[in-house]
Parts: sequence; structure tokens; C-alpha cells
Amino acid sequence: CSLDFILDTKIKETLSGLELHPSPTRRLSCVSVKNSGRLSSCPAGMIVTGCACGYGCGSWDIQGETTCHCQCSTIDWTTARCCHLT
Amino acid sequence: CSLDFILDTKIKETLSGLELHPSPTRRLSCVSVKNSGRLSSCPAGMIVTGCACGYGCGSWDIQGETTCHCQCSTIDWTTARCCHLT
Amino acid sequence: CSLDFILDTKIKETLSGLELHPSPTRRLSCVSVKNSGRLSSCPAGMIVTGCACGYGCGSWDIQGETTCHCQCSTIDWTTARCCHLT
Repeated sequence: CSLDFILDTKIKETLSGLELHPSPTRRLSCVSVKNSGRLSSCPAGMIVTGCACGYGCGSWDIQGETTCHCQCSTIDWTTARCCHLT
Repeated sequence: CSLDFILDTKIKETLSGLELHPSPTRRLSCVSVKNSGRLSSCPAGMIVTGCACGYGCGSWDIQGETTCHCQCSTIDWTTARCCHLT
Repeated sequence: CSLDFILDTKIKETLSGLELHPSPTRRLSCVSVKNSGRLSSCPAGMIVTGCACGYGCGSWDIQGETTCHCQCSTIDWTTARCCHLT
């Protein structure tokens, strides 16, 4: 019926005006943070996905979700790989 | 016109009630899973972004998207870094 | 009132027809790319979250967000762990 058509059109107009249709496209974004010593931390809002260490060391742990800690006895640098959604 | 205004108000009220406005904010969330031996697996629904190994070892591979496998001849522990969207 | 009810029903019907309710479920998806030598690169649209290296080496850096570079003097293979949202 006619009211139905008017309502339908009006509702779609309003939704369109609110820009509800497109959901924002999020992306994964990462940075590397290198530091001297055995600790390196991510910027606020980012989380560690992996760590690299000097002297060829592959033994590390993550403290508080944001800090890489390289464990080998001799370590000259630590890099945190830090990611978040943008 | 008056009907137009009534419809506009009503539509926005209904949308607000449905909480359609805010699209959910997704975040990247990660945990570390440490295990003795040369294998360590992520919880269901999470995926490996990197691995750490005992004895300073940096040679690893990922089996089935969810399990870290440290490759050096002597390995006492393996940690999987596991992430997903929340 | 009666008009109110008609509008309410109509608005929900229209929204349902537009399939606005479910926002698309994004997931984190990752692949490993192994290469001989000291460099390994992600496919287009993916970003490195961590690297693994031959000879037990845990010292690496990331060049241009998409390439793993293993730093130890002797390296026979390099693996890039590459992720993106699907």
C-alpha cells in the first residue's frame, strides 16, 4: 500500500543518512621497537606478537603483555614486535 | 511536513533501541603458552604469531597454525605466542 | 498508539531486510613463509608478526614491514610469520 512505500523509502533514507551501511575496515598494523639491553616495550595500545634478541638468542618471554625480555646471559639489544588494530 | 518529522524521530528511536549505532570495537588480544619440551599449543580460537624456545634457540616452525615446534637438538621449554581478536 | 506499533514493526522489518544486525566477523589469519637464505617476505596485504631463523638464530629484524632478515653470520633458512585480518 502507499503508506508502506512511504515508510520504506523514509526508513532507508534515514539509515543512509546515518551511514550505518559501511562497517569500518580495520587493519592489522605493527611496529618494531628496538632497545639496548634485555628489555623493550611497546607503545601504549599495542601488544607484543614476538621478540628478537641480540647474540642470536631465541629465548624470551613477555612481561605484562607489552614488554619483551631476552633471557640469554649476554644480551646487547632487544626488539619487541608490537601490533594493534587500526 | 509533520508526518516526515514523526517518522524521522521514530526511526531514530528504534535504531537507538537496537543499539545499532556503535559498531563493536575489536581488539587484538594475545597470551603466552609455555610448555616443557619442544611443543606448545594455543587455546582453541587463537593462532600463533611467534614462538620462543629454551637454550637460546631461535629455530622454530608452526604446525597446524596453533602449535610451536622448537627445532634445536636440545630444548627444555617452548612458548607459543597466541593471538585473536576479541 | 496504533501508528506507533505499525511504524515500529515496519522499521524492524526494513532493518532485518537490510541485514544490518550482524556486523561481519573478522578473524586474525596467519601463514608462515619459509625461504632459503637470510630473507623471507610476506604475501601482499600481510604483515610480519615474528621471524624464525636457521642455525638456532634468534636475532632478526623486519625490513619494510613485510620481510624478515635473519642476522647471524651463518643462516640457511628464514621463515616470516605473516598475519592479516580476514
